Amino acid sequence: MVSYSTYPNKKMFDIPNKERSEEEKSLIKEICKKQRKKNKEIVVIQGLGFVGAVMAAIISDCEINDRIPYFVLGIDLPSEQSYWKIPTINAGQSPFKVEDPEIELIFNRAVNVKKNLKATWVKESYAEADIIIVDINLDVIKLDLGDSRKFEIQMDSFKAAIKDIGKNMNPKSLVLIESTIPPGTIEKIVLPLINECFRERSIDLIQNPPLIAHSYERVMPGANYINSIKKIWRTFSAVNEIASRKTRMFLSNIIDTKEFPLMELQHTRASEFGKILENSYRAMNIAFIYEWTLFAEDIGINLFAVIDSIRVRKGTHDNMMYPGFGVGGYCLPKDTLLAEWASKELYHRDKELKFSLEAINVNDLMPHHTFELLQKGMGGDLKSKRVAILGASYRNDVGDTRNSPSIYLYDCIKYVGAYPIIHDPYSNFIEGRDDIRITKSINTTLKDAEGLVFTINHKQYVNISMNILVENLSKNSCIIDAFDVLDDKKILYLKQNGFKVLGVGKGHINNL
Amino acid sequence: MVSYSTYPNKKMFDIPNKERSEEEKSLIKEICKKQRKKNKEIVVIQGLGFVGAVMAAIISDCEINDRIPYFVLGIDLPSEQSYWKIPTINAGQSPFKVEDPEIELIFNRAVNVKKNLKATWVKESYAEADIIIVDINLDVIKLDLGDSRKFEIQMDSFKAAIKDIGKNMNPKSLVLIESTIPPGTIEKIVLPLINECFRERSIDLIQNPPLIAHSYERVMPGANYINSIKKIWRTFSAVNEIASRKTRMFLSNIIDTKEFPLMELQHTRASEFGKILENSYRAMNIAFIYEWTLFAEDIGINLFAVIDSIRVRKGTHDNMMYPGFGVGGYCLPKDTLLAEWASKELYHRDKELKFSLEAINVNDLMPHHTFELLQKGMGGDLKSKRVAILGASYRNDVGDTRNSPSIYLYDCIKYVGAYPIIHDPYSNFIEGRDDIRITKSINTTLKDAEGLVFTINHKQYVNISMNILVENLSKNSCIIDAFDVLDDKKILYLKQNGFKVLGVGKGHINNL
Repeated sequence: MVSYSTYPNKKMFDIPNKERSEEEKSLIKEICKKQRKKNKEIVVIQGLGFVGAVMAAIISDCEINDRIPYFVLGIDLPSEQSYWKIPTINAGQSPFKVEDPEIELIFNRAVNVKKNLKATWVKESYAEADIIIVDINLDVIKLDLGDSRKFEIQMDSFKAAIKDIGKNMNPKSLVLIESTIPPGTIEKIVLPLINECFRERSIDLIQNPPLIAHSYERVMPGANYINSIKKIWRTFSAVNEIASRKTRMFLSNIIDTKEFPLMELQHTRASEFGKILENSYRAMNIAFIYEWTLFAEDIGINLFAVIDSIRVRKGTHDNMMYPGFGVGGYCLPKDTLLAEWASKELYHRDKELKFSLEAINVNDLMPHHTFELLQKGMGGDLKSKRVAILGASYRNDVGDTRNSPSIYLYDCIKYVGAYPIIHDPYSNFIEGRDDIRITKSINTTLKDAEGLVFTINHKQYVNISMNILVENLSKNSCIIDAFDVLDDKKILYLKQNGFKVLGVGKGHINNL
Repeated sequence: MVSYSTYPNKKMFDIPNKERSEEEKSLIKEICKKQRKKNKEIVVIQGLGFVGAVMAAIISDCEINDRIPYFVLGIDLPSEQSYWKIPTINAGQSPFKVEDPEIELIFNRAVNVKKNLKATWVKESYAEADIIIVDINLDVIKLDLGDSRKFEIQMDSFKAAIKDIGKNMNPKSLVLIESTIPPGTIEKIVLPLINECFRERSIDLIQNPPLIAHSYERVMPGANYINSIKKIWRTFSAVNEIASRKTRMFLSNIIDTKEFPLMELQHTRASEFGKILENSYRAMNIAFIYEWTLFAEDIGINLFAVIDSIRVRKGTHDNMMYPGFGVGGYCLPKDTLLAEWASKELYHRDKELKFSLEAINVNDLMPHHTFELLQKGMGGDLKSKRVAILGASYRNDVGDTRNSPSIYLYDCIKYVGAYPIIHDPYSNFIEGRDDIRITKSINTTLKDAEGLVFTINHKQYVNISMNILVENLSKNSCIIDAFDVLDDKKILYLKQNGFKVLGVGKGHINNL
């Protein structure tokens, strides 16, 4: 039986059989031998997702004094879900449609011009590595949205991935973990696992203490994708001095450490902790503003203007978040849960990260407020009505739909018997939700809709002509501005044209 | 019977009787007449506390193109608690000992050289004002520390003060409120009160709509006291256009609006809201870090280093707070409660400011963690032992002890039968706590103490010689660094000398 792996754009690839895998193994060996002769180190990247794929491209593109220091092998699983990335990269294409134009160029250059990057699936590749970079996801499954105490983390698949490395790696190689993991994971899970693998392989642990380090990335999808790796601060930590030295040297080659000097923390726990604290801080501040958003709406205040007047205080108040529709992406909705898991399971603490857990709940349910505004604006009953949603992604001018709050809103609208239709200029699909079709024509989306929700401030939405709304929407439609897309002038114009307009954090527009 | 008002340094003043008040009235009239002839406007400031006194000095010191635009009358109550400020200011002295050396100079200059500032107690002075500035406190009394839902706000005395103005003021004058007040107070309390006063005085409200504005100060005690008024962003809002214009003109004369342009919000509700949101944001972020502080301590992480590595992200993460001993001062411990009061009492909302209220609780009880560290470090039983507290004030290099968490710690230590002794180079007294004597000699404070807590990072403490600790403290004493006063080198030295050292947010020092 042949299995297929399907690229999001429906292109299908055969998943390799045993025979092809044997051929690939020999090929990898041969390639690495050649590359070593060119005085290159071999970097193997585990996981070709949003981080790993672009890391692979950046590292393979790296040049120092006209010398190419690293040859890169990117590894992902030969599974239906993941395999398609491998032939895609090997064709010199980015596996993800992204907004940074440099990305497609860099993949083409690395694969077709420099021939310095190859994606593969064979685990034996780890044996070839001088440096192994772990960029796999440690996923969290929420069992009950709105109750952040109920979740599971996919530690088994993370452990299996680490074992793949331990069983195959050269014991002198550096394992650099970039994944977001619970504080304590390296010392309490990764290091013991690799020690065990080494013992099984009769590797002397005194002679060859595993070289493991942690350094978290701050990748941000969007137009500055590459610079969100290369030109940004990096924190790292390592289990011993050799690992620390190797990590420092490697990162100095990849990152602009002149402008952004590396910061080393004294323990892997600390940098694991740092990444999660950093994201919990953002999540918390979003949740904090939410309760003031509701207050401002109830008493007729334009919270955006108030926050603008506070954020001028640079260094003390300029991290204050604006009101919004909700929180999405891979990190903010779940990172706190990794810390809570560590607290309980790795350190057996009986104290909770109470605020931070509650922030996750508030953020998860935040889009419900927009749904309530919509219900209010549409007079309660949405049954059989068309509702247009402008925005499938969670971030402006980016196509990323992972955990997008738009999905929640879509489901709410459907649940009450209305017909949601969702548009996004950047996103083409929502993973795991083949039932949601993203439309590409704004006119089609708006046509005869009785409700419209702006969920994100994509440029296209901020610049949309009010005439398009007036011409396409049903008469007396309700428009919800959930992400500060419309200014007061536009809102006034829409009201004058018979529309009902409400906005998240825009208490003042009820009186406009 | 003669009543006295006592300056904190024990100097006593007779509270004026009726006869003296009558004389004062005539004197005020005469002075104002003279000052008006010099083409000055009369500014009357209600409330000579931390904000009002220094505002009075700054306004009276104001010069524009060599012209002095304002003569200032400062008003406070002829009560035992407040009267002493009046003769003190009239002697050309600051009523508060502050760290900004400019303050004493400015009071002397305003009163003795320029003769442009007079403090008084007679309410009839409001009649003389072109501009009345309200700088009185609206106090909150917490009924149950740790339960922020139980509190009372002193609205009656605030209303009485507003009535004093309404009954006496010239209806064409501007009333500029700088006090932190619940959102909605001006429209729902102040304006109706003044309207009522005007009606009783048969003033035509159509001809003379009261001119009321709100503009909140951001005064910060310390070395930059004056600049925390003059060189800082200002937000304001007014009930009508005339009030807005007058406020803009006045503030432009006092504040460096070239560098810090004024920001006007569209409704008084909004600027009332802004001040409270601003402080609730800080309070929330302090409370947020507290739960990560406990986690970091439990698992051996130096949270200061972690936060340093995150705060490099300017504009998104550099408002992150560091671990600390607790929260004090006039604003942060209570401002959120004013908003919660408004939500319930003025707007009858049934939603709570849940996070923000819980933050107040966490912060109020935060010093208890330091007490627990102390108990742990001292082996549980503190009975009959001397414990030195270095720091009475809540802020570094400032003498302000209002709501200082040191008071909480002092009480805990006393409660378990130990002997607290508290030192501060800047503070001389704690209002309302005559039982707590602040010592001025570090040696005396430390002598034979078996416990020592650094509660604040005053320069003097950061620079303290470790020998002073070694020489004075009891052998094997326990030292708690609750505010990052000691660096790791010092901690190591103290440990080598037999001391037990623990620190808030310093999980790593247990292993040093």
